[in-house]
Parts: sequence; C-alpha cells; structure tokens
Amino acid sequence: MSNFGFHSLRAVHPYEAAFREARSAVGGSALLASAEEHSDVASAIADATLVVGTTAVRHRHLHHTVRRLEEGAQLILRRLHTGRVALLFGSEKFGLSNDDLSHCHWLMRIPTEEENISMNLGQAVAVCLYELIRENKIPTAPEKTSLAAGAEIERITEMLAEALRESGFLDRRRVADADQRVRRLVRRLHLPRQDAVMWLGIFRQIVWKLRHPQDRQNSSEPGPGSL
Amino acid sequence: MSNFGFHSLRAVHPYEAAFREARSAVGGSALLASAEEHSDVASAIADATLVVGTTAVRHRHLHHTVRRLEEGAQLILRRLHTGRVALLFGSEKFGLSNDDLSHCHWLMRIPTEEENISMNLGQAVAVCLYELIRENKIPTAPEKTSLAAGAEIERITEMLAEALRESGFLDRRRVADADQRVRRLVRRLHLPRQDAVMWLGIFRQIVWKLRHPQDRQNSSEPGPGSL
Repeated sequence: MSNFGFHSLRAVHPYEAAFREARSAVGGSALLASAEEHSDVASAIADATLVVGTTAVRHRHLHHTVRRLEEGAQLILRRLHTGRVALLFGSEKFGLSNDDLSHCHWLMRIPTEEENISMNLGQAVAVCLYELIRENKIPTAPEKTSLAAGAEIERITEMLAEALRESGFLDRRRVADADQRVRRLVRRLHLPRQDAVMWLGIFRQIVWKLRHPQDRQNSSEPGPGSL
Repeated sequence: MSNFGFHSLRAVHPYEAAFREARSAVGGSALLASAEEHSDVASAIADATLVVGTTAVRHRHLHHTVRRLEEGAQLILRRLHTGRVALLFGSEKFGLSNDDLSHCHWLMRIPTEEENISMNLGQAVAVCLYELIRENKIPTAPEKTSLAAGAEIERITEMLAEALRESGFLDRRRVADADQRVRRLVRRLHLPRQDAVMWLGIFRQIVWKLRHPQDRQNSSEPGPGSL
C-alpha cells in the first residue's frame, strides 16, 4: 500500500497477534500505525461510495457481476473522481464470506491462470493497487461526492429490511440469507447522496405505519423528507 | 509465478534452508520442484536473448537505461516473439549487485511512490508478471530466435576481455570493474545469433595473435570464421 501511495488501511477484526507484529514492517510503519480496526465490514466501509470485493473465483458468485482487474480498475478510477472507494480483501485462507460480499457493489478478479487461481494476499493487494496507479491514472483529489456512502446505504438497508419484516414480505419468502439479499438489492441501486435522507425517511415512515396501522402521523415520529 | 503462468524459476546460489522450505508452497509446488539452482548469473541466463534487471532506484544506475514497468513490459513482450527473456530480481535485502547488473541489457522499475520505493520481493515479482499478462498480451510461443543468447554473449565477452588484457588496453585504463564494463559494452550490442560464432572467432584469433606475435597462423589454433 505504501509503495503505491494508498494510506487508508482498515482491518475487520484482525488476528490481534499478527496485526500487532506487522506494525514493525519496513517502509509501511506509518501506514500500519494509522491503520484502523473495525468490528464489522459495515463500519469499515462506512464512508465509501463504491465497495468492490476481490475474488479468485470466476463464475460462482451468481449474485454479483465479476469484472477482470483491468476493466474493474477503470470503473474504480472513474468513481474516485467523486468519492471514496473501498477495496475489500478476504482472509488468505477463506476469502470473503457471503456476508462480506453482500456489502459489495460488484467483484473484481485478478486474471490468473486456471491452474492456480489462488493468490497470496499481499501479492493480490500489490497487483490490484499497481493496476490502479499504473500510468499515473489516480485522480489527485475527489471533485465532488455524488453518491451515498456506505454508512447511509447501510442505514437505508436496515430500515428497508425492517419494513420487509413488518410488512410480512419476508414471511412469504423465507430464506436464510434475507439480510444479505436485501443488502445486495440496495447496493445495486446507484443511490445519489442527495436522496439518501429521503429514502431513509420513506422506509422509516413505512415501518412506523406498519407498526401503528390505526394511528395517524405521530408528531414524535420523524416524517419523511418532502418529495 | 504459477498464478500468471510463468514456469521457469532459476535461483542463483539461493539460501538453501529457505529454498527447500519453500518447496511446500501451496499452488506453486510443481514450479518449485522444477526450479533450477545456478551457481552464477551467467549460467542462469544462458539461454535468454534479453536480460532485464529490476531495481527500485530511479536515477542512480548511470550505466543502464531504466524504464518504467509499463514501458519495459512492452519491449519484453515484443522480444518474447523471437526468444527467451530473463527477468532478474535481487535479494530482498541488497537488490542486484553491480556484477549482477552487468549481465543486464537494461533495467526496469515499478512506479512506486518516492516515500517508499523498496518493495517486498514476492510482491515485486507478482506486479511485474501481472503487467506482462494483463490484457492477455503474452505470445503463446516464440516465432524465431534472431538474437544471440546469454551463453554465447558471455563467451564473446570473456574473449573480448582477454583481448583487452593481452593488448594492454586495460593497463592504460585501470578500473576496478573492468569485467563489468566489458560485459555491459557487449550487451549494448544487439548481437544477431548468426554472427555469434563469427565474433567469438574474431576475438579468439586476436587473443592468439597477441600471445604469439611472431608466429604465423598455428594450425592447432582455431581460426576465425570466414567473413
């Protein structure tokens, strides 16, 4: 990361011993000293307007578009003009879980040989970041932020999931991974930042109404923003 | 290497313990099993028509052209149509020595940040090989070999150095690194394979004549090929 000028490292419940030992790494000590620890993916990607997962697999993830690194990097670079992007890597042993993946807008794979698609984690990170900086394509600073960030999207997701539960929608479609499906559903939207508060208000209002079918609007309950 | 489809690993007097341990690496076991050990750089690059050294340094190596990876990879890919190319990496701690570098035609650097130009060896290898395979640009098989390979060039270099010693050329230009200078001198030529035997014969004849100034051609001494 420090070789290629990336400074924001966030570790989701890292293995403590290894994480602390790594702080002595040559050249990357400043980066490691400023690395953040997060207890879950949602908080780690809270300020990102695009979350890209990395995978060695080509066809298994039916839920997500999988792009080759060369193509994916172009989309990431375009997005970096308007907001922050999170690149999500799984553990070396297990990769990203389905729950981790549900936070992603799409997935990216390094074009490895069929014979050995599983890469060393540090090497995979180096290759992905190199693709982003090659030919000096990284924009120096975001111009404007137009899309809702991870934290806003996650709040909307939670409120939508609540609305689905309260409405009985999920009773009729019983699946074990309902939360992940809802998360992916919302991430497939390109939610403009300016509309995030509105959408949150809409679902909050729906949930309130579902819980209080007889009541008229309660003044203590926040209503949706004006359309 | 196995992730990106490169199969020929050659280690120059590797640290034995680490080299043997590494044989258990996941996914790369076949590659490591077939890895060759060489006692010197010259024998490791003997069949390469182009030898490219890797360096973190940008301006220090006045003896060699230093190209950015993106540009260098294009030249390597072009050369792969007609012969084998050796990519030379130094030890993680010390990089390539001046003697190692004297075997190289030119050098390549990964475009790292000024703040941290020193890369982990495995990551540097991964990034270089990725640049070569990105967008599927590797030619499937060499078409024709038109340039002299490392072993031929090294024999010519040795004979030229001998001629320089015998002629007194080096007495008048005393430098500690004469052998390296001669090696670079020969590598800056683009010696066609068809001329390699000729050049070797020329210098061999010169050396013989320098040692036997009074003699006529000795029938036991091989003469130069016909021009």
